[in-house]
Parts: sequence; structure tokens; C-alpha cells
Amino acid sequence: MFTHETRKRVRYGETDRMGLLYYGNYAQYYEIGRVEMIRSLGLTYKDIEDKLGVLMPVVTLYSRFIKPAYYDEDLRIKTTISEFPVRTIVFHTEILRANGELINKGEVKLVFVTAENFKRVDTPVEIRNKLKPWFEKVD
Amino acid sequence: MFTHETRKRVRYGETDRMGLLYYGNYAQYYEIGRVEMIRSLGLTYKDIEDKLGVLMPVVTLYSRFIKPAYYDEDLRIKTTISEFPVRTIVFHTEILRANGELINKGEVKLVFVTAENFKRVDTPVEIRNKLKPWFEKVD
Amino acid sequence: MFTHETRKRVRYGETDRMGLLYYGNYAQYYEIGRVEMIRSLGLTYKDIEDKLGVLMPVVTLYSRFIKPAYYDEDLRIKTTISEFPVRTIVFHTEILRANGELINKGEVKLVFVTAENFKRVDTPVEIRNKLKPWFEKVD
Amino acid sequence: MFTHETRKRVRYGETDRMGLLYYGNYAQYYEIGRVEMIRSLGLTYKDIEDKLGVLMPVVTLYSRFIKPAYYDEDLRIKTTISEFPVRTIVFHTEILRANGELINKGEVKLVFVTAENFKRVDTPVEIRNKLKPWFEKVD
Repeated sequence: MFTHETRKRVRYGETDRMGLLYYGNYAQYYEIGRVEMIRSLGLTYKDIEDKLGVLMPVVTLYSRFIKPAYYDEDLRIKTTISEFPVRTIVFHTEILRANGELINKGEVKLVFVTAENFKRVDTPVEIRNKLKPWFEKVD
Repeated sequence: MFTHETRKRVRYGETDRMGLLYYGNYAQYYEIGRVEMIRSLGLTYKDIEDKLGVLMPVVTLYSRFIKPAYYDEDLRIKTTISEFPVRTIVFHTEILRANGELINKGEVKLVFVTAENFKRVDTPVEIRNKLKPWFEKVD
Repeated sequence: MFTHETRKRVRYGETDRMGLLYYGNYAQYYEIGRVEMIRSLGLTYKDIEDKLGVLMPVVTLYSRFIKPAYYDEDLRIKTTISEFPVRTIVFHTEILRANGELINKGEVKLVFVTAENFKRVDTPVEIRNKLKPWFEKVD
Repeated sequence: MFTHETRKRVRYGETDRMGLLYYGNYAQYYEIGRVEMIRSLGLTYKDIEDKLGVLMPVVTLYSRFIKPAYYDEDLRIKTTISEFPVRTIVFHTEILRANGELINKGEVKLVFVTAENFKRVDTPVEIRNKLKPWFEKVD
């Protein structure tokens, strides 16, 4: 299991008429969570695309909205990979208030495709190698 | 069962670096689908908020990304309510290309709360009455 | 002079905590205006990029916010080219309520660059030819 | 004169099909710049709205796009108030790459209105007091 945390403040343009973070904007928060998690491993999403020639399209997205997020809150984005990625990679995200209250849970599954022709490939070895130390009994 | 269809073109600002509709923007398409469906019933989402004093926060969102959506495509947004709403309302959305190819499926569950203090309430009678003719054995 | 009009409804996700169309979202409305104007000429922005190999980056944007735009308003986007484009192309946009009240004025200047290496080029002849009939004394 | 700097990374969902930060998203960057500048003064935009009952609608926006911003760049947002605000407040924003290269200039003028009925008011004294030390010969 590998867990990473970053923060993001709710911006005016992200709120809606209810005065809350618009439901469609959580996907951006999940993106920030997984991109910063990958960066913390010593890789970047950008290099995966530009240097490895591999894109990571999302195949499923699931969100549960537990509590509203208010304007200007400094939210915690906690991202977890709980299964070692082979054919797909799943990022679990918890969004919490500064005080630890859980307000949203997300699950995003991505696959790997070649930038050249969008053919499915396995998780690049560069990503596997970075994640291996965090998973037991993975060879 | 009640079904409604509207259209929406993929805009430049909605695409991302892959040249495709960004995964986070589908939630806006689902919103358009359900808002236009409600309008087709002779109600508006705005009046539900402003006149009935009822807000409809999203509690769960599920998306399956089947095929990519390209810039400038004129997509069909097909929205269905398959269960008569009592405590919650679920909108099923299919996004299709002009030629009928299914590219995305979404499911959004919303609840009803009072604008005044965010207390849960049942589906307003004004919405039930509009939907009744479309569902059998509903009294 | 060439003028074109299209419509766009203010969506929930485009409003902010003030209950109004967020100031940062008008640029999307201007984009819709110019893209639909070009389509009305029998060209598409997409083909300009994909077939002519020419991109159109924005170099300046100016907006004047006169009146607020409310949720669910069905706005008129009126786009005008008042000068025949040679090195640059300028789109003037007026956003009006359904009743004709002017609520926003925008001016967006774009240039043409090659998709290959971002080198500045003049307005492609395909665009000039379509616009010529609308401008007097242009050869 | 009062100047403040913050940072923001270009996110995937903010890029477009050209692979660059979409022109419509710079307004969000300007918002981040001015909100963080106000916070650095010991006030928050949220409190101005919620406690002082004053909203700050934008009346004009001007942007000059000098160089493109790429995906994943960690941009510097430098915000300046060069004139002491009385009836209006103008924020000048420069967006720079990490290496100091200027890529965008923005100017956003806002006014102050009461939340209650959108009546124009002068800059609240709470804001003036915070800014006074930074401007000479202001009484």
C-alpha cells in the first residue's frame, strides 16, 4: 500500500450557486492527488507521457459526496494505491477538511496505452519499480 | 421510465493535452442532461431551488469511460430515470456520438434538501406529479 | 463586417458562490461564439488545425462585465469581425440576455501559427476567401 | 505599491488540445493571486464577503498572452496593487515561469457592492487600513 497527501484550497471559480465546491470539480482534485503522489515517487506524469510515450486514460470514476466543501477551505487530498498495478492502476482518494473530517471518497481506475496508437499496455516498468518497495510479496 | 435526449458539442476548453474531452468534464454533461430533462417535464431546476426552496446535492457519481470524445464532436446526451424517485433520484446518462456509438455511461444520485437548513426531504410533490405518468403502478 | 449569433445557457457548474456566471467562464463563451461563427462560414476550427495545420493562439483578451449573468439564462452570443484579418484576427463579442440587454463585451485577438513549429503565418487563404464577400474593397 | 507572489502548477484538466494552459483558465490564476495577496494582508476574501457583507464583482479583465504555459509547469503568480483603492481596486498580475520568464500579464478591476442589494460602495475601511502602510501620502 502506498499513501500520499497533498493540499488544495477551494477556489471561487470552483464553487457553484450553492456556495459549495461543484460536484464536477472533484475529479480535478483526484487528478492533483495522483499526480502529486507520482511526483513523490520520483517520477512525473508528464515524463510518463513525454519520455515513456505512455498515456493514462481514466476508465472508471466513482465519487461519494459525504459532506459539502466550502469556499476557501484548505482541503487535504489523501491518495492511496492499495493494489500493486499490473494491467490497471486504481487510485483511492479521500478528501478531508483540515480538522480531519472526511467529506468525499473517490476511486479512479486508469489504464496504460501507447501515445502512438492508443494500444493497451501493462504498467510501465519504471512505475512498477518505484512502487515495488511499498507492496509486500511482489516480485 | 422516463428518457430524454439533448446535444452538446465538445469545446476547446473542455479538451485536454490528449486532445480529448477531459474526464472531469463529463459531470457537466450529466448536469446538462438532467437539467434539460427536467425542463422537458415543464419544470426547471432553477425554480425547484428558487420557488420550492429545495436544493439537490449529488451524493454519488459513477462514470464509465468507454471511448474517447474528440474536440468538436456533437455528442448526444441521453438521460433516463428508471425508478420513480421517493427519497433519492437517480439519473442514468449515456453519451453517444452522432452515429449512435456509446462512449460513456454515467449514474448520478441526488437527494433533496431544504435551501434553508440543508435538511433531507422527500422528492417534492411537484416533481412527482410530473413524473407519475411515466411510471406504472405509482400512486 | 461579418456578424454571427449563437446561444448558450448558463450552467450550474459555471456559476459561482455569488450565484452568477463566474468571470473566468466568459472566455469559453467567446470561444463558442467564434467557433460557431467560423462554422457558419463553411469551415471548422478543427479543420483549420487538422487539415491546414494552423493553430490560433490567443494573444490578447479584453472583457467588460456590464451586468451579471444568472444561472439558467439562455444567453445570446453575438460575434463580429469588423476588420478583414491579415496578420491577426479580432473577434468582438457581445453577450446579451434573451430580451436584448447587453451584459458583457469581449474582444479577443488571435494569431496564426503553424502546428508544426509555432511559427507565425498570415491568415490562411481558406479563411480569407470565406470572409472576402463580407468586406468591401478587399482584394 | 503592494506586491505578493504565490505559485500554482498547471494541471492536466487546465490544458487544452494544443497541450497548453487554456486561455480561459488564466482568470482563475489571477483570482488565486489576488485572494492569496489579500490573505497575506491578514484578511480573507471570504471574510470580506461573509463578515463585511461586501462582494467584489469584476468589471474589466485584460490579458496579454506572451508565451505559452505548459502542462505541469510550476508557475509564479505575482500580483501588484499599484494604486491605493478608493472606488475601485485594480490587481496587476504577472505570470512567470520558475526561471523568471514572463509569460502572461493580466489586469483585473473590481468594484465593491453590498451583498444585500448589490449597491456600489467604496473600498471597505478594513481593506484600506491593511493597505495604507504600503502607499505613501495616503491619509
